[in-house]
Amino acid sequence: MPYKLYYWDGIPGRGEFVRLALEEAGADYVDVAREPDGQERGTRAMLKLLRDGDGETIPFAPPFLKDGDLLISHVANILFYLGPKLGLAPQDESLRFVANGLQLTITDFVAEIHDTHHPIGVSLYYEDQKPEALRRSSDFLSERLPKFLGYFERVLRQNPRAGTHIVGDRLSYVDLSLFQVVEGLRYAFPKAMRDYEANIPGLIALRDAVAERPNIRSYLASDRRLSFNEAGIFRHYPELDRQS
Amino acid sequence: MPYKLYYWDGIPGRGEFVRLALEEAGADYVDVAREPDGQERGTRAMLKLLRDGDGETIPFAPPFLKDGDLLISHVANILFYLGPKLGLAPQDESLRFVANGLQLTITDFVAEIHDTHHPIGVSLYYEDQKPEALRRSSDFLSERLPKFLGYFERVLRQNPRAGTHIVGDRLSYVDLSLFQVVEGLRYAFPKAMRDYEANIPGLIALRDAVAERPNIRSYLASDRRLSFNEAGIFRHYPELDRQS
Repeated sequence: MPYKLYYWDGIPGRGEFVRLALEEAGADYVDVAREPDGQERGTRAMLKLLRDGDGETIPFAPPFLKDGDLLISHVANILFYLGPKLGLAPQDESLRFVANGLQLTITDFVAEIHDTHHPIGVSLYYEDQKPEALRRSSDFLSERLPKFLGYFERVLRQNPRAGTHIVGDRLSYVDLSLFQVVEGLRYAFPKAMRDYEANIPGLIALRDAVAERPNIRSYLASDRRLSFNEAGIFRHYPELDRQS
Repeated sequence: MPYKLYYWDGIPGRGEFVRLALEEAGADYVDVAREPDGQERGTRAMLKLLRDGDGETIPFAPPFLKDGDLLISHVANILFYLGPKLGLAPQDESLRFVANGLQLTITDFVAEIHDTHHPIGVSLYYEDQKPEALRRSSDFLSERLPKFLGYFERVLRQNPRAGTHIVGDRLSYVDLSLFQVVEGLRYAFPKAMRDYEANIPGLIALRDAVAERPNIRSYLASDRRLSFNEAGIFRHYPELDRQS
C-alpha cells in the first residue's frame, strides 16, 4: 500500500522535506492533494482529516502521512518514522536520535525563516506586517542565519565519518533537508547567501552531492518538484534581503 | 549511571518539560548546572559541550541530555528517547509517533509563546521590541492561543481511552508537558486565561490530575521547582495580557 502524503498543493513548503526523502528512496507514495485530476478531492480529504481526525489521531497542520492506519504529523516525526524504512536513517540506533536532533534544529530554523516575512501573525498578510518584517529579517540575516548555518557546518566538519553526510557515514534524510534549506535560502536571500556561502564550504558540497544523486536529479527535473514562490516558507522579497 | 540534564539555572524554560518527566518517574538524574555548590562548574561544562560537542554530536542549544555516551538534544527528542525508559510513553509503539506528534505541536506552541515577547529577535531585549510585542501578543491571544488550546482539547475528547490522558490509556510525558503549558500560560496571561479556561474543561482536568500525582506534588513543593520569571519563556508583562 503506498504511503499517503497530505500537504497543500502549490507550494514546496514543509511537505517538500518529506517528498525529497520519498523521492530519493523511490518509495511508492501518493501526494494526495496533488493527484492529477484529483487536487480538489485530495484537498477536501486533507481538510476533513484536519477537522475530524482519524480515530484517536488528529493532526494539527499539514504535512502529515498515512501509512495504513497510522497517521503521523510533523516533518521531523514523519522522517524519524520513515527514515529506517527508506534506508535514509543511520543504521546505529542511537545515531537516529542524533539525526532527529539535527532535524529538529532544521525545524526551528525553518520556523525562523518563515517568521522573517510573518513576524506578527500567520493570519495577517505580509503587507500588513512589513515594517516588522524588515526589522526581523535584518536581525535574522545578521544573527540567526550565521548561527544556524555555522552550526551545521561545524557539525559536518566534526562528523568523524565526514564526507558530505552530516550524520553517520551514508546519506540520511537530514542531508536531503539541508539541501532544501540551502536551495530555499538562495531563493529567498540571494544577496545575503552570495556573501555568506564562502563560510560554509562543507554545507555547499553536501548540497551539490545531493543535487547530483540520480533520483533527486530526475525528481528536480520533473513536474512533481514545485518552484519556490511567495506563498511558501522561503519567499523572495528583495526588500528583506541584504541591501548592498 | 544517572541521566545528566544540561539546562540553564534560574529559569524553568524548556528544561522543565524534561524535569517533569524525570521527577514523575523518580529517575536518577543530575541537573548539571544546578548542582548544589556546582552551578558554575556545571554551567562551564554545558558551555564547553555547546562549543566543542562530544564526539560526533554537538547540541545547538540547551536543554540536552547525556545518557552514558549518548548526547540527545531538543525537548521532544529527549522525551521520545526517555519516554519508554521512564514508563511515560504509550506501550503501543505506533502510538509513540502520535505522542511525538503532539509533543512537537507543544514545541511549536511554546516557540510562539516565547515570540510574544521576542517577535523581532532573541538577541534584543524585550524593551527594544515592545511595540512589536504588543501587536504579536494581541494576535497570539485572539488567534493562536485558542487554536492550540482548542486543538489539544479536541484531541483529548477524541481519545477513545479518554479520561485525563491525551494519548493512550495511561499517563505520558505529553500530559506532563500540557500541565506545564497551562501553568505557564496562567502565569503569563492571567486575564486571557481566566476568560478562556471555560472552553477547555478537559485540559484543566488533565492539569489538575497531574498536579495531584504524589511525585509531582512533592516536586512542586521542593526547591528543585523553579518559579516562572521574566527571563524565561512564560513571562508576565501585564501590558501583553488581555486588556480588560
